[in-house]
Amino acid sequence: MYPFSQSVGQLRTSEIRDLMKLATRPDIISFAGGMPNNDLFPTEAIDEIYKNLPKKIKQAGFQYGPTSGYPPLIEAVKDYLRTKGLPVDENELMITTGSLQAINIVTKVFIDPGDRIITETPCFIGGTSAFKSYQAEIDPVPIDEDGIIIEELEKKLNQKPAPKIVYLTPYFHNPAGIIYSRERKQKVMDLMKGRNIILLEDDPYGEIYFNETDKDLTVPMKVNETDDLPICYTGSFSKILGPGMRLGWLLAKPEIFQKCELVKQSMDACSPTFTQVLANEFLRQNKLEPYLAFLRETYKRRMDIMQNCLEETMPKEVKWVKPKGGFYMWFHLPEGIDATEILKDSIEKGAVFVVGKTFDPHGVKNNWFRLAFSHTPEDKIHEGVEIIANAVKKFI
Amino acid sequence: MYPFSQSVGQLRTSEIRDLMKLATRPDIISFAGGMPNNDLFPTEAIDEIYKNLPKKIKQAGFQYGPTSGYPPLIEAVKDYLRTKGLPVDENELMITTGSLQAINIVTKVFIDPGDRIITETPCFIGGTSAFKSYQAEIDPVPIDEDGIIIEELEKKLNQKPAPKIVYLTPYFHNPAGIIYSRERKQKVMDLMKGRNIILLEDDPYGEIYFNETDKDLTVPMKVNETDDLPICYTGSFSKILGPGMRLGWLLAKPEIFQKCELVKQSMDACSPTFTQVLANEFLRQNKLEPYLAFLRETYKRRMDIMQNCLEETMPKEVKWVKPKGGFYMWFHLPEGIDATEILKDSIEKGAVFVVGKTFDPHGVKNNWFRLAFSHTPEDKIHEGVEIIANAVKKFI
Repeated sequence: MYPFSQSVGQLRTSEIRDLMKLATRPDIISFAGGMPNNDLFPTEAIDEIYKNLPKKIKQAGFQYGPTSGYPPLIEAVKDYLRTKGLPVDENELMITTGSLQAINIVTKVFIDPGDRIITETPCFIGGTSAFKSYQAEIDPVPIDEDGIIIEELEKKLNQKPAPKIVYLTPYFHNPAGIIYSRERKQKVMDLMKGRNIILLEDDPYGEIYFNETDKDLTVPMKVNETDDLPICYTGSFSKILGPGMRLGWLLAKPEIFQKCELVKQSMDACSPTFTQVLANEFLRQNKLEPYLAFLRETYKRRMDIMQNCLEETMPKEVKWVKPKGGFYMWFHLPEGIDATEILKDSIEKGAVFVVGKTFDPHGVKNNWFRLAFSHTPEDKIHEGVEIIANAVKKFI
Repeated sequence: MYPFSQSVGQLRTSEIRDLMKLATRPDIISFAGGMPNNDLFPTEAIDEIYKNLPKKIKQAGFQYGPTSGYPPLIEAVKDYLRTKGLPVDENELMITTGSLQAINIVTKVFIDPGDRIITETPCFIGGTSAFKSYQAEIDPVPIDEDGIIIEELEKKLNQKPAPKIVYLTPYFHNPAGIIYSRERKQKVMDLMKGRNIILLEDDPYGEIYFNETDKDLTVPMKVNETDDLPICYTGSFSKILGPGMRLGWLLAKPEIFQKCELVKQSMDACSPTFTQVLANEFLRQNKLEPYLAFLRETYKRRMDIMQNCLEETMPKEVKWVKPKGGFYMWFHLPEGIDATEILKDSIEKGAVFVVGKTFDPHGVKNNWFRLAFSHTPEDKIHEGVEIIANAVKKFI
């Protein structure tokens, strides 16, 4: 009855919203949300920063800033990305309203209705919804524990019309929890060179590695960018400071950056200056590194507790990869078993998680489920995992 | 060379960005930016709020929130809108990343490429860029000092294909500074009833009236919404707290709201919780009303100073309407005179403003210019206006 546009017709309410309501009920143990626990945020560090902000800087936080970001923060993030070897000087950096906005903007800059985007399956649901909102044809490629399956990717790359974007989350994938091997990244890059297809490399979890020895797995492909393979690299403060700041970034070639800046200008003019001022001080006062050390230790401990409980309780038919970092574990049920049935039983007994089809760009495959260990209190993990394992047993 | 989308091709760099760089030079008197002066922000009120935030609330500020907004803020804004007579209970309220995002979302929800949007001319440049970014056909209708010209609007409404959206900024228009008369609003509503065209009523400046007697001119059309005239009403904290918070809102019918929520979810997941928490306390601790009283008085004084200077110095051939509120004055030069020439001369002498074509959706008409009195220090207004008047004299 209202004259809605065609593009909005492709967007559906996700089940995640309803799950999140359950997830905040105090009587439910939640492994659902892909977010930090409220107790882990660096509130004291930010208190101290806020208390000592000069008035002029505070006032700047109340004001509009440039569309591309608060200039001191742009420099601070550039310095930080330089330590990761990223080609900051050959690219431009934009501060975005979360990395989801960066993904959304890149999509708008390249996608006309019907254009193809290759994603992983499973895939981050925010990415999927951004792609659908521009009426992209999503073409999902399966992954294994080392990354996207190269033969399948090659097949899809060769199909006509050529895809415009390949969207990958190589570091502690959401939901799959895996990290790409060096070889797999190299093969992806070899395969994509010279095709004039955008590699959208999404890296919100790379800092959350559990062992120092795995750190070099987190080196972005963007570090080895060449002229014949344009890479748009996105990152976020959501997992290393707080999602409520709504700050992410996009590192892209100047010609791409310019288009992205125009799009952002028409979307929200600029990201919140108030939180950009705080994030800038957080970086410049060297508060990030000690906080990351704390997060790595904390999430590793939670993952270990969860892994132990799983080994004790989960039927052998259920397969998963022990993650080397990030927030997630991803469980493969035998074919034909419906994770939604297990979820229903779990909710009744007091534990909640997210079913697999949520992360299938086509919304079908459901013999998978995701547990996030990032926000569940440590003393609740055992009880919650047991509830889910018991629910699984009823269906196996 | 990069495979850009068609929609991004319609977006052009605005001259405003370059002007803004000039506007922050300390040796230049700026009437360019449509923003408050940094000295006017309620930093002390927010300091006090921040200092007394309970830890649990502060932690919530670091976390994701619902896409539609931080629930206590939604309620607080609803209460505030209720005092303005708005039909809060028959509609849904969404917190957005500035009101520009609300405009962008409504556009995405209704516009397919080639769909028509009727705007005023002149028109808020953020609106124009959002509309262009979705490849809308913009059909501008002139305004006079009482609002949009009804005969022209009727003609455009009757043209086929019917427009999908009519976008109006009736209260202290940017850039024109005018406020719609009661009669004009009634005629707009009478004309639009039963056509199934969305009225997008943008109200970021309504609170900044200079005389209590004009307050009832600021009653939104949305107050008198009927079933046969869907109105999407947008507002903002940018002018009544600070643009750096990046908070605005959208009040819309539930069916429209649901689509908008899906679009927002794919854009930035949620607006900054951190600043939503602060804005919520600002409203609930009754800090808005005294701050508004201060702002009305301050902006009225600036406008009066400017009006006096203008009467003294501006050639009679230049016409303008003395504003009853808001941030702007809008100057009509005789036909054939190019505001860009005047701007060049003014910049040389040390004052900057925005030329008319910036606000013409077609980017052509340039015998107009805008002065903002909102962020120019009071003791600089006289000098700045004199520079501009002298520049004008050279071309008349």
